[in-house]
Amino acid sequence: MRSVAILGIGQTKIDEHWDRSLRDLAGEAILAALRDAGRDSAEALFVGNMMSGIVNDQNNLAALIADWSGLGFDNAPWPGRQGRQPGHGVEAVKIEAACGSGGAAFRAGLMAVASGEMESALVVGAEKMTDRGPHEVTAALATAADADYETEAGVSFVGLNALIMRRYMHEYGWKHADFAPFSINAHANAMHNPYARLHQKITVEDFEKSHMVATPINLLDASPIGDGAAAALLVPAETLSRASRIVISGSASATDTLAVHDRPEVLFLTAAYKSAQAAYKMAGVTPKEIDVFELHDAFSIMSALSLEACGFAERGQGPRLGLDNEINPNGRVPICTRGGLKARGHPVGATGVYQIVEVVQQLRGECGETQVDGARIGMTQNIGGSGATIVTHVLTSDVKR
Amino acid sequence: MRSVAILGIGQTKIDEHWDRSLRDLAGEAILAALRDAGRDSAEALFVGNMMSGIVNDQNNLAALIADWSGLGFDNAPWPGRQGRQPGHGVEAVKIEAACGSGGAAFRAGLMAVASGEMESALVVGAEKMTDRGPHEVTAALATAADADYETEAGVSFVGLNALIMRRYMHEYGWKHADFAPFSINAHANAMHNPYARLHQKITVEDFEKSHMVATPINLLDASPIGDGAAAALLVPAETLSRASRIVISGSASATDTLAVHDRPEVLFLTAAYKSAQAAYKMAGVTPKEIDVFELHDAFSIMSALSLEACGFAERGQGPRLGLDNEINPNGRVPICTRGGLKARGHPVGATGVYQIVEVVQQLRGECGETQVDGARIGMTQNIGGSGATIVTHVLTSDVKR
Repeated sequence: MRSVAILGIGQTKIDEHWDRSLRDLAGEAILAALRDAGRDSAEALFVGNMMSGIVNDQNNLAALIADWSGLGFDNAPWPGRQGRQPGHGVEAVKIEAACGSGGAAFRAGLMAVASGEMESALVVGAEKMTDRGPHEVTAALATAADADYETEAGVSFVGLNALIMRRYMHEYGWKHADFAPFSINAHANAMHNPYARLHQKITVEDFEKSHMVATPINLLDASPIGDGAAAALLVPAETLSRASRIVISGSASATDTLAVHDRPEVLFLTAAYKSAQAAYKMAGVTPKEIDVFELHDAFSIMSALSLEACGFAERGQGPRLGLDNEINPNGRVPICTRGGLKARGHPVGATGVYQIVEVVQQLRGECGETQVDGARIGMTQNIGGSGATIVTHVLTSDVKR
Repeated sequence: MRSVAILGIGQTKIDEHWDRSLRDLAGEAILAALRDAGRDSAEALFVGNMMSGIVNDQNNLAALIADWSGLGFDNAPWPGRQGRQPGHGVEAVKIEAACGSGGAAFRAGLMAVASGEMESALVVGAEKMTDRGPHEVTAALATAADADYETEAGVSFVGLNALIMRRYMHEYGWKHADFAPFSINAHANAMHNPYARLHQKITVEDFEKSHMVATPINLLDASPIGDGAAAALLVPAETLSRASRIVISGSASATDTLAVHDRPEVLFLTAAYKSAQAAYKMAGVTPKEIDVFELHDAFSIMSALSLEACGFAERGQGPRLGLDNEINPNGRVPICTRGGLKARGHPVGATGVYQIVEVVQQLRGECGETQVDGARIGMTQNIGGSGATIVTHVLTSDVKR
């Protein structure tokens, strides 16, 4: 595979965008990424999205977004028509892997450029969830679980994560407040991210007093849904000068059983371990060299499990990193530096691309108050389902700062 | 890109499989393709599916199918566990491009192997549509159209195609019976395909007397939905001996506006033209050299438009090929040799992979009564929406027969 770099990034604020359509949000992020890259278009569009078919009555989403965003020009006049036809025509496809859709779409774009099949690819993660009521969105999120063997039994997606968290607390002796630092760090960092959904500092007391959702997960353990889109433009690294590029040095994806009860170990994210190991190997790095890690904190328990599976903490010791102040931007393992899923927000199929955009911002040194000093190697990990599909990327900066 | 070959194929009968689940159908096709290839597993799974989120309450489908099919082995024991863990773990992702999902998934698998990222990839197209009532499936199919500007106005997917067909008949002076040969050929060929949904010969009289669906499209202009799955195993061509391989010599995808009313020309499939031209160029062939063409006859009008856009007929003259007996297995442009969407059936997201499987059968000389004599170069074209996403592949056989 030839090496691939990220030339441009774009994102929308995550919010309840009741006056915007899904295509419109995606278009805003795409045009921002193109503007950032100084480009007009790209040869293909890869869309990460989970639930447009369910909550927006829209499939065939990638063609729709490509057209709306004016991607591509028809340079081959067809019989009966002459000249350059602007505004449509690029290859476009949607990738779905539940909440891991964004990361999976990014990996698909990477392979398309790495293969030599194309010289540029846009990846956009886009989701619009707030036009429907809470029960409809809860039902849509539950499609990430096993419909026949989990959802059919009445368990919601947060319910599944609650079972995992309860078992984890029982097994390793943690109390609920021990998870507070994950949410506190995320909320604190989001204060400095204008694209974040929540701008609200929280304390341990807030965390403990918050409304219960599914014991032991309360509102401040859980990430908010939202509407938003994030985009990145990929080009061959060889076309850029070494002094100004951010390269995708590691990329891997792995799966686990969809149903949590089918796993021999419910407290270890096997697919996170596998994909992280493969990405480390490809990038030639170890966890110690990762300067910033945008992980998938859909629920606080997932932060702990992701840190453990990726080699940043011993098994059962994830919460220790938070309690020891190691996860903030000045710590040993900075996570959720732009707010994470918890406070930046979690527009499910878009999240994986937001993570990429945020790591690029860190490697460019654009993060102000939450900048990780001298960040040069960053990592993202995007999870679909309760650990069923996990996509890990390592980005390396050649930028001299 | 390195050259990629198809080593194994598998498929289920298309039917109303009320006693089978979606994962079960996909697993049957995958295991058949692995058996055909003499392999145990593959490094990744690419799933083509349109509507599992809507009609099966199931997203994250690729991880589910990978697990159910027992794909992958965990050769990297994780902390606390030892040895080879069978049965799950391969990278898996779902590709959605409405009824073009299967072809798009096949192209994603191609790029993954061509890039050098992996040495094998399974592609499966799978759809299970008959557990829901007709109005629910009609609504699900309508998500292939523009939700805000077409579906919102009350037009169904067949309604959109009816508008196109009516305009075509008006513009070029064809009468409805002139489209009969497309359906008659498809039904005649399906008689010899045990995997086809419909085994029922039809006549011009049947065609003309059939129940109206949306004027001028009647029941025998339209393909039936169904439950089914088809799979193919892709490996680098260099790993196989020249004398026994079928190579993907051309591959391309293009898009058009989702909304039909946004197109400057509604009677020309621009994306079909673009993707066919690109695939021809990549394969180094012209339409004259194509021995067999599995096209996307979701409605008879689409057969005509596809033949014209791909260079087999002049504009407005597609039906002539049928009337002149050129489209049957002994004709100049054999199409739908295993029954096409019309009679083999159209399990929407699976169809594109069925087309690939059927062309491989032709190039292997396995088609008995409907075998195209000496077929060496075959083509598939898979369409998502009313021409919005179009994926074209050219397969070339090195097999000596």
